[in-house]
Amino acid sequence: MISGKAYEVNPRIVETDKVKGVLKRVLIGLNVAPNFVMRLFTIKPNGIIEKHTHPWEHEIFVLKGKLTVIGESGEVVLEEGDFLFVQPNEVHGFRNDVEEEVEFLCLIPKEGGE
Amino acid sequence: MISGKAYEVNPRIVETDKVKGVLKRVLIGLNVAPNFVMRLFTIKPNGIIEKHTHPWEHEIFVLKGKLTVIGESGEVVLEEGDFLFVQPNEVHGFRNDVEEEVEFLCLIPKEGGE
Repeated sequence: MISGKAYEVNPRIVETDKVKGVLKRVLIGLNVAPNFVMRLFTIKPNGIIEKHTHPWEHEIFVLKGKLTVIGESGEVVLEEGDFLFVQPNEVHGFRNDVEEEVEFLCLIPKEGGE
Repeated sequence: MISGKAYEVNPRIVETDKVKGVLKRVLIGLNVAPNFVMRLFTIKPNGIIEKHTHPWEHEIFVLKGKLTVIGESGEVVLEEGDFLFVQPNEVHGFRNDVEEEVEFLCLIPKEGGE
């Protein structure tokens, strides 16, 4: 067994031309997980992960704040206690429109890296 | 995309000779998930899932309360914001020793059912 405190895991800053204001913590990564990995994302106020696609799914659970999910046909705002399944190859993005950080678990199969 | 509110999903009561006081909600199940499934467990005060093994791993995140994890060589108490990886075939059990429900996400690969 391996356990730990999520907020003691060092965050990696994710910053590209399509990603702003995002931190990622790999809680259960490829070094131990045989099938899928668990990451904790923080999006700061006004932060964004622009729309994109990839061949693997997301399984998401919102821990705190409000998560605006950008889909092909519109947006939906999720909050603490909400879950989301994004299918393989489905267009999706995420944004934080409020003045509080949003935090969510995002799990992906190992083929997506960590 | 499929989203929902975890606490609006109907809980299934899990009760066997080795499991007492446990509710399970399947948030992202085999009907949609291609690789792994997301379940939300509640263990009531004094509830228990006795020690057992199976050939698939667990990826766990504690949302609320205190989760006593029973391993082969001792116990550890996890709390909100803690994560746990249980390896395939590793002996494990769970207990709630406090007067508040414990709630945790537990994800498993599809070979473990849902």
